[in-house]
Parts: sequence; C-alpha cells; structure tokens
Amino acid sequence: MSLSNIRIVLIQTSHPGNIGAAARAMKTMGLSDLCLVNPVKYPDPQADAMASGADDVLNGATVVSSLSEAVADCQHIIGTSARSQRTLRWSLLTPRACGEFAAKSAQTQKVAIVFGRERTGLTNEELELCHQLVHIPSNPDYSSLNVASAVQILSYESRVGHLALTEGGAEQSASQEADAEVLGEEIVSAADMDGFYHQLEALMVETEFLNPDDPRYLMRRMRRMYGRINVTRSELNLLRGSLSAFQGRKLQRRKTEQD
Amino acid sequence: MSLSNIRIVLIQTSHPGNIGAAARAMKTMGLSDLCLVNPVKYPDPQADAMASGADDVLNGATVVSSLSEAVADCQHIIGTSARSQRTLRWSLLTPRACGEFAAKSAQTQKVAIVFGRERTGLTNEELELCHQLVHIPSNPDYSSLNVASAVQILSYESRVGHLALTEGGAEQSASQEADAEVLGEEIVSAADMDGFYHQLEALMVETEFLNPDDPRYLMRRMRRMYGRINVTRSELNLLRGSLSAFQGRKLQRRKTEQD
Repeated sequence: MSLSNIRIVLIQTSHPGNIGAAARAMKTMGLSDLCLVNPVKYPDPQADAMASGADDVLNGATVVSSLSEAVADCQHIIGTSARSQRTLRWSLLTPRACGEFAAKSAQTQKVAIVFGRERTGLTNEELELCHQLVHIPSNPDYSSLNVASAVQILSYESRVGHLALTEGGAEQSASQEADAEVLGEEIVSAADMDGFYHQLEALMVETEFLNPDDPRYLMRRMRRMYGRINVTRSELNLLRGSLSAFQGRKLQRRKTEQD
Repeated sequence: MSLSNIRIVLIQTSHPGNIGAAARAMKTMGLSDLCLVNPVKYPDPQADAMASGADDVLNGATVVSSLSEAVADCQHIIGTSARSQRTLRWSLLTPRACGEFAAKSAQTQKVAIVFGRERTGLTNEELELCHQLVHIPSNPDYSSLNVASAVQILSYESRVGHLALTEGGAEQSASQEADAEVLGEEIVSAADMDGFYHQLEALMVETEFLNPDDPRYLMRRMRRMYGRINVTRSELNLLRGSLSAFQGRKLQRRKTEQD
C-alpha cells in the first residue's frame, strides 16, 4: 500500500500532546510512518492520551537527531511552510497538489512531509534539504494552525490523492457537484418527468387550484422548480405514489358518494 | 465575506477541549459562526486552553437546545457522517464537493455543517433535518477521526472552495447555472421549509400514503429531494397553495358529506 511510503517528520515538537494527535491524524488517513527529530518529550503520557487508538503509530515512531537522518532514504522531501515564501522562489505546492504528488510518488518511492517547530517552523538549513514546499492556505489574520491539524490536512490530502489513483481519477477529482448528490442512482429522463407533470396538472385542475382557462404559468413554474431537483428513479416513484394517494383517496371518496 | 455565512454546529460535544480546538480550526480557515447544541461542558477552561487565540470564536458561540433551533435560519444543512451511508441512499458529498458547495452557497445564503456526538454521531431525528451528508474518507481499519479534526478538514475545504471562487472567475461562472434560475429571488429558510414539510406529512398521513407506525423514511426522502431545489419565496407559496388545494378539496367534500 503506497500510503505506507509517506513519512511524516516532526521536528523538535514541544508539546507531546501534538505528537500523539499527529499519530492519530495519520492513522485515520492510513499513514503509519512517523519520524521524530529531537522531540522535546517522548515518550510521554500526554502523547499516549492524544493518540487514542493510534498507539501503534506512536510507539512505532523512529527518533533521530537531525532532519538529514530522518529523510536519508527518501526520494522526495516536502517541507511545510506557514508562509507563502514566494520571496524564496520555492516550488510551492497547494495541499491538494502535495497529496496528489505524494500519493503518486509513493507508489514506488519514499516521500517525506516535514513539519517544523510549533513556534519557529523550519530552520534555513532544514529548508535547504527540502525539494518542495507546501503551504496550507489560512486566515491571514490568524494563521495559527496547530501542527497536528496541519498533519491532519496533509494526511487527508494524501489519502484523497491515493484514492484518486486507486479508484479511478475521473470519478474522484473532476466535476462531482450535481452527481455526487445522487450517488449511484439514475436520474430520470425528461419523458419520465413529463408523466409526473401530467399527473400533477390533472390533480391541480381537479382540485381547482389550476383553472385551465387561466393557467397563470403555474405548470411552467412547477416544471422549473422540479426540474432543478435531478429526480432519481426511486424519488420519481415517491412523487408519483404520493400524487396517486392524493388522487386515489378522492376517487375512493367519490365512489363512496355515488354508492 | 461569504465564509461568515458558514455555521459550524457541534451537537452535545462531550469534551470541552474539542470545542476549543474546533474554534481554533475554524478561525485558522476564516470561519467564525459556531453554534453548540447542548454542550456537556461550556464554558470550560479546557476549551479556552485549546482555543489558543480563537477565544473570540469560542466566546461568541451561540448555545441552543436542539438542532432545529441551530439551523432555523439556514437554507442548507449538511450533516457529517462517519459511514458512507450508501444503504440510505443519502445525498453524499465528498469533503471537496462540500467545500465547493458551501462556499458557493454562502455567497448569498446561510449554510450549516453539522457534527454529531464524539461516540454516536447524529441521531436519526437529526439526520432528518439534513439535506445532504458529507463523508470524510478514512482508514477503514481506524476511522476514529477526532471531531475537531473533522471540523478542520471541512473548514479547510470551505476555504479552498472560497478561494477558488474569489481567485478564479472561470470556475465561478461555470457552476452558477442552477442559481441563475432563481437569480434575484430570496431562497426560503429551513424554518419556512419545515412548515411545508409538516403540511405535506399531514396530507400524506391523511391519504394513508404514509403510515405513522411505519414511516419508511418517506419524509426523510422528501426532505432530501425538496432540499435540493433551493425553493424561492414565490415557489414556496405555490407548493403550499397546491397542497392546501389538495387538502381543502377533501375537507370541502367531507363537509358536503356531513351536510
């Protein structure tokens, strides 16, 4: 599984709770390779508490004393940056592009995503070791993204990138908007909808809501409204069934009256 | 700014630290509207500690006693689900589609993204109120995503969706088709739609289409379907007027029978 080739590297993390939360964030997304560079406190009960059920990732972490050690066997090294760093002319990835790149590269190679210290980030020396930078867009007035939250977002994007590769890119990435709404179900045809509109119109005439001599665009407005739904097969059955009930009850009643 | 129209709703959160972390997650992405439904502990020092510099979002949170109160003024209600819920044939969004949808809708309307309890998620009754569900893809062997982490991911996707709208005009115009149809007309609120649903349900029960002892998700399916329309004020009048005609005719008939 390619996600196991993506390594999360945390440099000199101050709060052990963040290490535990990062382990949990990784595991929820299927990542497992955690490397700690000079952690301030590790192991630590706070880390255990925050790891929840991800103690295997936490306890399996390797501990090293420099970033170069941490990434020695990696082909790709991506540093995270709180700033856009445009001035440094870095190759700057969006989290999405980072996830796609990491998932794709991880099919055959090892990728490291590197997170700096809570307050001060990565040193210049550490930046030198990175091939690319990724910047998570954030509120310019408050860009205080927790390090475990940053791990969560980039692990999530790695998983999305991975799923796009394994489940078929087209389905995952492109224009899912309307279709995502009715997952896996056929949208009915215009002809099918016409049957519904005729039934609706008949009922509206019957109940004197619509006067055939003065229709006031009522059916046009109904069509425009229902036309926005993208009605599925089972939903059309529901709509027509309810109309039949509204009509049927009346027919039944009429029949009773005639008896 | 449209992101202020996106409301994060947390239902009965057990751990106050999660509320604080959610506030921080929101603020890093530019969201500010937090609503708590029956929080177990709020306010609480643990929440303050986890909020870091996002105490304005945390302290500005509204506290209510039910989901329907929390979303009364919202046009779009998106529930989060830990499962894919394919069996229920929900309108199931990816986080990406959710972010795009929320950012686009939030330009003119209010959108709620609803997070359930840490252990048990949303109740069926709460699910009834949702128009769509979003599922964050996760490790099938360990899908224990922390609620604040889920808030982080969906807030992040909302920001990405927002940036795509504001920074890329092409994308904006392409996905506006549906809205063009209702251009310039007010979309009614969830509370307004509730009135319609109650009337529809009453008629369905009356005509024996819906058996209150065995409702078979009929109202949920109706809500999901009509929830996709973005009903305008004049359309709601049309819908309610037609239902009244369907009902009134019957009452009239009943009256005639009694005479």
